[in-house]
Amino acid sequence: MMSAKFLERVRSFAREEIADKGNHFDGLPEMPTPELGALAAAGLANWWVPEQYGGAGVSLEDSVDVMSELAYADAGFAFSAFPTIIGSTMLRLYPNAPHSRRYLEELAGGGFCAVLASEQEAGSELGRTATSAVRVGDRLVVDGEKYFSTNADCASLLFVLARDEDGGFGMVLVPRDTSGIEIVKRWDMVGVRGSGTYQVALRRCAVAADSRLPGNGIRNLEVALNASRILIASIAIGIGRRIRDLAMDYAAGKQLKGAPLTENAVFAAKLGQIEMTIDVMRNQCRAAAAQVDAGFAAPDPTAVLYRAGALRSALAAKAYCGQAGWQLASVGSELFGGLGYTHDHPVQKLVRDVRHVSIVEGGEDVLRDLVYSRFVLPAGKRR
Amino acid sequence: MMSAKFLERVRSFAREEIADKGNHFDGLPEMPTPELGALAAAGLANWWVPEQYGGAGVSLEDSVDVMSELAYADAGFAFSAFPTIIGSTMLRLYPNAPHSRRYLEELAGGGFCAVLASEQEAGSELGRTATSAVRVGDRLVVDGEKYFSTNADCASLLFVLARDEDGGFGMVLVPRDTSGIEIVKRWDMVGVRGSGTYQVALRRCAVAADSRLPGNGIRNLEVALNASRILIASIAIGIGRRIRDLAMDYAAGKQLKGAPLTENAVFAAKLGQIEMTIDVMRNQCRAAAAQVDAGFAAPDPTAVLYRAGALRSALAAKAYCGQAGWQLASVGSELFGGLGYTHDHPVQKLVRDVRHVSIVEGGEDVLRDLVYSRFVLPAGKRR
Amino acid sequence: MMSAKFLERVRSFAREEIADKGNHFDGLPEMPTPELGALAAAGLANWWVPEQYGGAGVSLEDSVDVMSELAYADAGFAFSAFPTIIGSTMLRLYPNAPHSRRYLEELAGGGFCAVLASEQEAGSELGRTATSAVRVGDRLVVDGEKYFSTNADCASLLFVLARDEDGGFGMVLVPRDTSGIEIVKRWDMVGVRGSGTYQVALRRCAVAADSRLPGNGIRNLEVALNASRILIASIAIGIGRRIRDLAMDYAAGKQLKGAPLTENAVFAAKLGQIEMTIDVMRNQCRAAAAQVDAGFAAPDPTAVLYRAGALRSALAAKAYCGQAGWQLASVGSELFGGLGYTHDHPVQKLVRDVRHVSIVEGGEDVLRDLVYSRFVLPAGKRR
Amino acid sequence: MMSAKFLERVRSFAREEIADKGNHFDGLPEMPTPELGALAAAGLANWWVPEQYGGAGVSLEDSVDVMSELAYADAGFAFSAFPTIIGSTMLRLYPNAPHSRRYLEELAGGGFCAVLASEQEAGSELGRTATSAVRVGDRLVVDGEKYFSTNADCASLLFVLARDEDGGFGMVLVPRDTSGIEIVKRWDMVGVRGSGTYQVALRRCAVAADSRLPGNGIRNLEVALNASRILIASIAIGIGRRIRDLAMDYAAGKQLKGAPLTENAVFAAKLGQIEMTIDVMRNQCRAAAAQVDAGFAAPDPTAVLYRAGALRSALAAKAYCGQAGWQLASVGSELFGGLGYTHDHPVQKLVRDVRHVSIVEGGEDVLRDLVYSRFVLPAGKRR
Repeated sequence: MMSAKFLERVRSFAREEIADKGNHFDGLPEMPTPELGALAAAGLANWWVPEQYGGAGVSLEDSVDVMSELAYADAGFAFSAFPTIIGSTMLRLYPNAPHSRRYLEELAGGGFCAVLASEQEAGSELGRTATSAVRVGDRLVVDGEKYFSTNADCASLLFVLARDEDGGFGMVLVPRDTSGIEIVKRWDMVGVRGSGTYQVALRRCAVAADSRLPGNGIRNLEVALNASRILIASIAIGIGRRIRDLAMDYAAGKQLKGAPLTENAVFAAKLGQIEMTIDVMRNQCRAAAAQVDAGFAAPDPTAVLYRAGALRSALAAKAYCGQAGWQLASVGSELFGGLGYTHDHPVQKLVRDVRHVSIVEGGEDVLRDLVYSRFVLPAGKRR
Repeated sequence: MMSAKFLERVRSFAREEIADKGNHFDGLPEMPTPELGALAAAGLANWWVPEQYGGAGVSLEDSVDVMSELAYADAGFAFSAFPTIIGSTMLRLYPNAPHSRRYLEELAGGGFCAVLASEQEAGSELGRTATSAVRVGDRLVVDGEKYFSTNADCASLLFVLARDEDGGFGMVLVPRDTSGIEIVKRWDMVGVRGSGTYQVALRRCAVAADSRLPGNGIRNLEVALNASRILIASIAIGIGRRIRDLAMDYAAGKQLKGAPLTENAVFAAKLGQIEMTIDVMRNQCRAAAAQVDAGFAAPDPTAVLYRAGALRSALAAKAYCGQAGWQLASVGSELFGGLGYTHDHPVQKLVRDVRHVSIVEGGEDVLRDLVYSRFVLPAGKRR
Repeated sequence: MMSAKFLERVRSFAREEIADKGNHFDGLPEMPTPELGALAAAGLANWWVPEQYGGAGVSLEDSVDVMSELAYADAGFAFSAFPTIIGSTMLRLYPNAPHSRRYLEELAGGGFCAVLASEQEAGSELGRTATSAVRVGDRLVVDGEKYFSTNADCASLLFVLARDEDGGFGMVLVPRDTSGIEIVKRWDMVGVRGSGTYQVALRRCAVAADSRLPGNGIRNLEVALNASRILIASIAIGIGRRIRDLAMDYAAGKQLKGAPLTENAVFAAKLGQIEMTIDVMRNQCRAAAAQVDAGFAAPDPTAVLYRAGALRSALAAKAYCGQAGWQLASVGSELFGGLGYTHDHPVQKLVRDVRHVSIVEGGEDVLRDLVYSRFVLPAGKRR
Repeated sequence: MMSAKFLERVRSFAREEIADKGNHFDGLPEMPTPELGALAAAGLANWWVPEQYGGAGVSLEDSVDVMSELAYADAGFAFSAFPTIIGSTMLRLYPNAPHSRRYLEELAGGGFCAVLASEQEAGSELGRTATSAVRVGDRLVVDGEKYFSTNADCASLLFVLARDEDGGFGMVLVPRDTSGIEIVKRWDMVGVRGSGTYQVALRRCAVAADSRLPGNGIRNLEVALNASRILIASIAIGIGRRIRDLAMDYAAGKQLKGAPLTENAVFAAKLGQIEMTIDVMRNQCRAAAAQVDAGFAAPDPTAVLYRAGALRSALAAKAYCGQAGWQLASVGSELFGGLGYTHDHPVQKLVRDVRHVSIVEGGEDVLRDLVYSRFVLPAGKRR
């Protein structure tokens, strides 16, 4: 369990190193940003890596609050700091795979890995993945083009979803310095611009034959996305808290109908609703995260988590926080009058940033469909 | 912690004794219903009463699932089975008050207590309570009229919020058989009609002088309402699950555009959204309940809970489940075509039943205002 | 154009003969109700029948306000008073069909016709209609069972959608007193209970061979439903106005936080939103209705209206008013505290009544799909 | 009445001169843009100026479609092209005021006027306007600072709301070249960046004594804002149509689950809903505009319009289109997968652009409050 002290360290770091740098982060800064370096220097990077690998060992449940603090300061920074959890979760699933321990120990000290899964044609359907991994001699040769991958440029290790020769799918570990990897472009994203997301080509990248993780690659990714989706959802918590505090700051100096805005009933109702929404988002994220933590605490975590696949609560966390965060930001964007529609006020950035929660790692249609097919259609899995 | 076995017993009871009696419960049946008697006979009544008083000692966190099961079978029955928790929570807050132990032991075996707080004029503002409690000799004389009180008729013990002589407010225990108690009317409610809610007059009801609980009566009630609001919110979970299952039953035999309705993408999206909403409601209720449980597990529960007053997560649980449950039922009421608009189909009752969650024990405006004034306005309490 | 005087007569009639009879209309009264008789006696029945047939000739645009007034007084009554427009519209489409003039002249003086289209299996897909119309000698024999038909019992003329022998669909006029018509049941509807909707069996009903209207029966119905859908949508306007006025009456005598409720900013915001919603609903209904009026004013109305089929604005009117009316009623149902959740207050009936707008004559999914396929998919029809 | 031909000219102009210049308009281009010059050169600028002044005399009702076409091409451009209507409406209200005719004739040929009303402290409350107009000899001296004014820089004539010496408010005409006018800053707006909005200081600007329009300045502005609010609302129509068409273009080349996206039921439902929303927005704007047109067609337009003040339908148009447009854009922003979250896709700009509709000229809280106090509170004005 995270000591309150660790969270306090994160909060201090965020306040001192991240906050009030909105323009910097909003400007698509070169990756990795100096602030990511500072996070590692402070011993706070990749905080979820287990203590047995030299990490801080913060539970996923408590990581919700860590992300909330980082996102409160800057959602783009937060979005650059956590995606390594996808790869590290897959390494934890297969601790005996070659190099798993070495990589995890490396990540404990900072550093990045990235996942390359989505493709332009396939859209949300990973089963249409065209990138291939073919055995050539004692090498595995990966070939294809991936559409959206966060941190792919600064990562030292890439996890590439590829079609096996037998038509199945595998997750292949490709060191970043492998020959044939080309960053096609950095996406000019609408929000969370303090992070870097890339289109990447893999042209006949040859890696060691044992670089494919055991199991079905799509399933492995699905398992790892539980953690990732929960932390993405947690970004909405931080943004919601920030909007609430900006509103209270604004209202403190504002009069309406001859009384302080803070005494206006409509304003109070909006803020009361925002506060409740924040509470529900946090409880949902923490509950979902506790399920992941429980899986890793089980006697045979790999079997338990692999069998479970995508967790209902993790899917619901991302969908709910995406919807609720957007609703909250929509209300928030009207709280500051005309000023809130200008770049002189930070709320406009928060509106853009929070949109990402609904979009990335499965839009709402995808999530609804997945929940339906996994948890509603088979009557036995309803609860 | 509740054994899964207890929940299974509740589920069996609900399936066998409650389900498929919609018309019976919807007809304002005489209170207490035979089914409430059966619940007690099965040893399931007032399941949250601690083991030290002879109860089943189910935690509030697990009571969320108990309520969900009861409400799945019939929300009106569920609403009749739980309000005793308000009174029993106040007794637990003051275990050394006269008769607290005796009453709690009595409730462990079944039976009802009721709270009389709301008044017609005061509306949502308890500070305008006009009912008075005046010391006359060695008796406390209670006088006033209360607007909405569930189970007031069949309860053996009433908790009456009354204005003290010094202008403060106290919670006075009034045995139901005290002279001067008159049931003015039973409300003809729109839903949850398997329960009984009454308007009650108290005409110079004299009780023992030590019948007033320690502390401010409004605060005591507020603390007890945490449990109550969470269980009311849980009703929406059960109703949501029921609507989901009714929809799947209906879809199983229905064709649309030449394919089974279960394969229709719009239907799937609605059900996926419903399933996620159920998940978020449940996690919110359980998280809020865990906070109440933690309060009672603290070294000095009375001080901890009294100081905390209304819990943010409990308020958010009732508000969120009221909103989300209504949204879900609104969607649900359109899933069955014209049939769903007739009394031939149960969904119409579920729509009426779930409305109660938003209305009772503080409408949404009241909750938003309370959350604002308690948790947003004082910056230190934001999270 | 309707004289303001006609609307004033309707308003007086509604106030004197309809209002304050909520319990009567809510009790599934025998059809036709005495009030429908009074409507005819006052010369107000079937007000849209053109003057050339002896009717009042109120335009559909102005009929929106007529319906709003009737629904303000009682939505169930309003729903019993207008469905004859579907049949009369089809008669107007084919003025030279046998008996068209005679029937229209009869309707001008009052009386009812009913449409029998929906079937249990077919659901929203009229193309799956199983009821058949077969030529036997000089008779057309209609055979089948219809699921929902308003006024089918008290109507003198039925319009039956039936499958032709060649697999197409025709609209067949069947006098109510034809042998073989059986009212299977009157539906016990959730709301608009002042009207009567029936399940009807047609067992070898033989009618004159020229009883089939020209054209495709589904298309003819579609054209006639434009008028009907707009008037159903208009019911939401009347209900919205009623809720607004009930809220203002309630607020007039209510205090909140030491001030009249009418001065509370949250209350004001809700009522302001309700008023704007009423305005948008009314403008949408009137605009859609003006298009139908324009069609009938065209040189060749039959060709123009038949070619147009379902009008986008009519579909949007029903969908929007269904959604907005439900939203408005949802807000309204929370405006009266606990009282609004009892049968002591009329708002509970209004909530049930307004639900019908979304359900009848095409649920929202059906409307969205229809608008998509008719107006979005063929790029040339977008506007 | 506008000939369909005029609208066709606008459509051609928009397609040829405006469309596909998203980056140009999004870049805060220097004002007036060359495209505004081209609009005037094409004889399309200020299209609503009556023919008696040499204008095209397009009705406000038809101006809704003109704005929709311009906004379809670029909302920022549209927002730069119409605000002159506020000033020209005030001139039309007072045709006999000095120079009214001259100014109107000038505007018929193109050119801009701007309104300076809002102030930083006053926020939405014009009654707190601090800018003053004081008589000094034969001059009126205007002094103050205005917060948001569109086109203030390129306008030749400014309409300044100022406090009279007697505490009332007047609307003062101030030629742009008057000494003392300073553009404090151009706002860096979130959207509609093809237009220019400014903070402006007026330092002892002396104008002719007869430069104050008759009547209360706030009331005059309110009357003129009817036209403006309707045209702003119309921007949402154009943006909605654009999103719909972008979605259909995208779907044409996209597969989902082995079928074209255009055949997916969820996609169809979204587009069907969008199409209906567009229809309701348009009908509301046109209905509101027809009321303004009717006012100007009345025997004494000034008296009629001044007495009416803010029109319910105009307020509802802006509020509804703001809400519905935002809802539509929110849905739209999820239709294009991750690509829609990048600047490679135009939808992100449309989301930003449409937000303006809700913000400018009265946020939703202001509009709700205004509608409540004007049309709900006084029972006689409800409809």
